[in-house]
Amino acid sequence: VRIADLSSRSGTSIASIKFYLREGLLPAGRPTGPNRAEYDEDHLHRLRLIRALIDVGGLSVATARDVLAAVDRRDLTSHSLMGTAHKPLSGPDRHDPDEPGWVAARAEVTELAGRRGWRVAPDSPELDRAADAVAALRSLGQHDLVALDRYADAVEPLARAEVDQVLARREPARMVEGVVCGTILGERLLAALRRLAHQDASARRTPDLANGAG
Amino acid sequence: VRIADLSSRSGTSIASIKFYLREGLLPAGRPTGPNRAEYDEDHLHRLRLIRALIDVGGLSVATARDVLAAVDRRDLTSHSLMGTAHKPLSGPDRHDPDEPGWVAARAEVTELAGRRGWRVAPDSPELDRAADAVAALRSLGQHDLVALDRYADAVEPLARAEVDQVLARREPARMVEGVVCGTILGERLLAALRRLAHQDASARRTPDLANGAG
Repeated sequence: VRIADLSSRSGTSIASIKFYLREGLLPAGRPTGPNRAEYDEDHLHRLRLIRALIDVGGLSVATARDVLAAVDRRDLTSHSLMGTAHKPLSGPDRHDPDEPGWVAARAEVTELAGRRGWRVAPDSPELDRAADAVAALRSLGQHDLVALDRYADAVEPLARAEVDQVLARREPARMVEGVVCGTILGERLLAALRRLAHQDASARRTPDLANGAG
Repeated sequence: VRIADLSSRSGTSIASIKFYLREGLLPAGRPTGPNRAEYDEDHLHRLRLIRALIDVGGLSVATARDVLAAVDRRDLTSHSLMGTAHKPLSGPDRHDPDEPGWVAARAEVTELAGRRGWRVAPDSPELDRAADAVAALRSLGQHDLVALDRYADAVEPLARAEVDQVLARREPARMVEGVVCGTILGERLLAALRRLAHQDASARRTPDLANGAG
């Protein structure tokens, strides 16, 4: 199809499509003449993935590019692709690794992972990200909200079911896309549903409120 | 204390502190002379909150300002503060409300909330955000990852325990800060722990890998 069709079928403006082409997120179409190219279903799918990462997932263009590069690699085992897909998503280090509060929080998270028997690399950036949140909560005196086992109880069965599902896929390309989508879009979904559950729990605890109002 | 002490005690550069003052995120200090001001423990605490929202939570300065305005309001009931604290966090609408895929996803999420008996406002922006993720997953053919009840099972007990904890606080200021921190930092913590649980589940399903490697 032509770029105009790609635009209408994906709900993405031609300007955005040209931007993604220029930035290397979307592969070039098959040239059919000067300033003309033909796009196919793979382009449409890739465009949906780009928009999911950027518009829904909130990734920067640079991070989306790194994630898509992981998606495009075909030499990964199912396990190493998880690390490869997670890596660009975990973002830059924002903590000061010598700050005592952060060091204590990192030890707390490492201890949690050990206690739960989680097989994770000791230098996993996700341990640092969890420590960032724990250190911030503690620095603000929100100690009762650092209920790490409560969080672990929530994510463990979810993560196991998701990994089983994704690893059961036969094509590696579908597998790695499942990891990326499950991670990014799943996080957004989880966050939105947790907020809805907060609103519900709060409404139940405030019986003078009408159903769902307020 | 002087701005230099505020800087060293909070691990924030003087330039950043001046930026937060200029942007209205941090209240001005008590003037003690031309170009001199005195700051107190409240400033230090506010500075930690600002950095938690921006550095750990990834909020923009504008969104952080809106969240802090909600924190500073003293006229909110415990329930309405949840909506007020959530509102700036839910971000702008990014979906096309007439797009059939999105409309179907929104109905799916509304149905979930109804089925679970969640007391949430029918126009809650969190329902839109959940629909964004569901619509993106479906547009990418990741139908098996749209396991809404699995997500709801994960967040319900977590959210109820958190709301109980925060509503049990006696000072309203501590309550609203608990909502904000619990929402933003809790989401980051939940996301990081879910990724760690993914890595663990993947390592278990790939028995040829050494502990935590790969």
